[in-house]
Amino acid sequence: MARSVERVAVIGLGLIGSSIARAVKERLPQVVVTGHDASDAVREIARGLGLCDHLSDDPASAVENADIIILAVPVGGMADAAQAIAPGLAPHAIISDVGSSKAGVAAALAKALPDHIVIPAHPVAGTENSGPAAGFSTLFDGRWCILTPAADAPADAVEAVSSLWEALGAKVDVMDAAHHDMVLAVTSHLPHLIAYTIVGTASELEEVTESEVIKYSAGGFRDFTRIAASDPVMWRDVFLANKDAVLATLQRFNEDLTVLQQAIRRGDADKLEDWFTRTRAIRRSIIAEGQDDPAPDFGRKH
Amino acid sequence: MARSVERVAVIGLGLIGSSIARAVKERLPQVVVTGHDASDAVREIARGLGLCDHLSDDPASAVENADIIILAVPVGGMADAAQAIAPGLAPHAIISDVGSSKAGVAAALAKALPDHIVIPAHPVAGTENSGPAAGFSTLFDGRWCILTPAADAPADAVEAVSSLWEALGAKVDVMDAAHHDMVLAVTSHLPHLIAYTIVGTASELEEVTESEVIKYSAGGFRDFTRIAASDPVMWRDVFLANKDAVLATLQRFNEDLTVLQQAIRRGDADKLEDWFTRTRAIRRSIIAEGQDDPAPDFGRKH
Repeated sequence: MARSVERVAVIGLGLIGSSIARAVKERLPQVVVTGHDASDAVREIARGLGLCDHLSDDPASAVENADIIILAVPVGGMADAAQAIAPGLAPHAIISDVGSSKAGVAAALAKALPDHIVIPAHPVAGTENSGPAAGFSTLFDGRWCILTPAADAPADAVEAVSSLWEALGAKVDVMDAAHHDMVLAVTSHLPHLIAYTIVGTASELEEVTESEVIKYSAGGFRDFTRIAASDPVMWRDVFLANKDAVLATLQRFNEDLTVLQQAIRRGDADKLEDWFTRTRAIRRSIIAEGQDDPAPDFGRKH
Repeated sequence: MARSVERVAVIGLGLIGSSIARAVKERLPQVVVTGHDASDAVREIARGLGLCDHLSDDPASAVENADIIILAVPVGGMADAAQAIAPGLAPHAIISDVGSSKAGVAAALAKALPDHIVIPAHPVAGTENSGPAAGFSTLFDGRWCILTPAADAPADAVEAVSSLWEALGAKVDVMDAAHHDMVLAVTSHLPHLIAYTIVGTASELEEVTESEVIKYSAGGFRDFTRIAASDPVMWRDVFLANKDAVLATLQRFNEDLTVLQQAIRRGDADKLEDWFTRTRAIRRSIIAEGQDDPAPDFGRKH
């Protein structure tokens, strides 16, 4: 790194924040990790797990002398988190984040910290679990981390954040925040919305009991329940923050669903078979790109 | 078993049929497994794998002297398969199947084989892979197999099919075919339809390239691609055979999706958070019931 990074602060020690802390300690032992979480209970667990070299009760103290600060809180809480750390920031500090939507977060951080360097980031990784105990140091291995710096962001700051993520195991891409939000609306936000919807639908039918839904879930339904078990507050914020792109992709999904609905109603066998044959190829590409496990059924134990 | 089952015939040696043949050979070594597949190529692979004790080029020969015959072909092919085996059937033979929809299949089999005992069945198990090489003997372990016998079906025949499935590792339930079709529309058919839709939608957007969809699929999308990689012909037939129940559950899904769409548009944070909190509980129940892997992210390697 052209910039020296000796101290990294993580604000918010849930799944992602605690995974970053673990990965820094394991992969970059010379770097000091400081941390803070707004929740007393989370800080206590984080202390017990030894996640950070220094864990502060106060957000401003946690970021003192830090070269890079990573805000790992729900996107709706980014502005408040930025204001809370402001008094402790070193003049040279780079502020980054892990939010799943970027245009709104970038604007909120730039407004809250007008005199500091902000390099927004989004590691595309996670599990359905939440909290400091759910994190692990290898979460980012082979996954993409997308940076969305402003056009006038200093190149050495982009390089420093990029190098940090590569050291944690990630591959780094840089793109425009608005394009990020459209890409992630498709690859992450719409899938979560659909999964949340269908799990809700299935649990409230009159004709089929919840107990039956659970028993026979291996027919496909259980796959959706993993995503629909993701953190409710995090996802509430994502949909509110990336509203326009989510609604735009949802409209496209609804069009396609109506086309398939009509094909089923009309008994259009060819249309269904053609569609289902096309979609098969996508999974092969994802596996070829190393973005999913090639084992059948995600490698579930049978 | 009250009825003696010394010979089982499997017609159709894809993922499910070949898994049955493997499981019978492994768990019931005293039972002779005979088999047939309409495809020359599949029969050749099946011979190479040694899936059956006797593999016939002719369906009627494959079922001679068999006590139980299992039709493991797409539901749209059940009537033809039943007609093809009819000349070889022993008078006491029980004909069963593995179709994912039951009312239509039960009617087709009863019509094709009016003088024989038909006990329809559906093992709720599978992977996204197809073909004789994709099967494995433990596929049914701990999974449910649902039998939908007619009200006047002989109890000893139901018992014989039930015992066979239990010997293969499954748990057995008996229910009405119409109820089966509604339950599976929710737990399997609608999830497949939604997954096929979203994978198609994502691969045809103008704003986001297919390469981007693949790269950033770990944000949630990749989960859907597994199901959307399932056998196109099998699923084409399921949607055509269970049209009414699928369209009824799809309507409920669409209602719920519209409610969430409106909550996003209006910025109704409480509604979103409440919904996402409710759905989280369902996954815990599925894991508690032993119907999914408790490991985060389905136990994918990280």
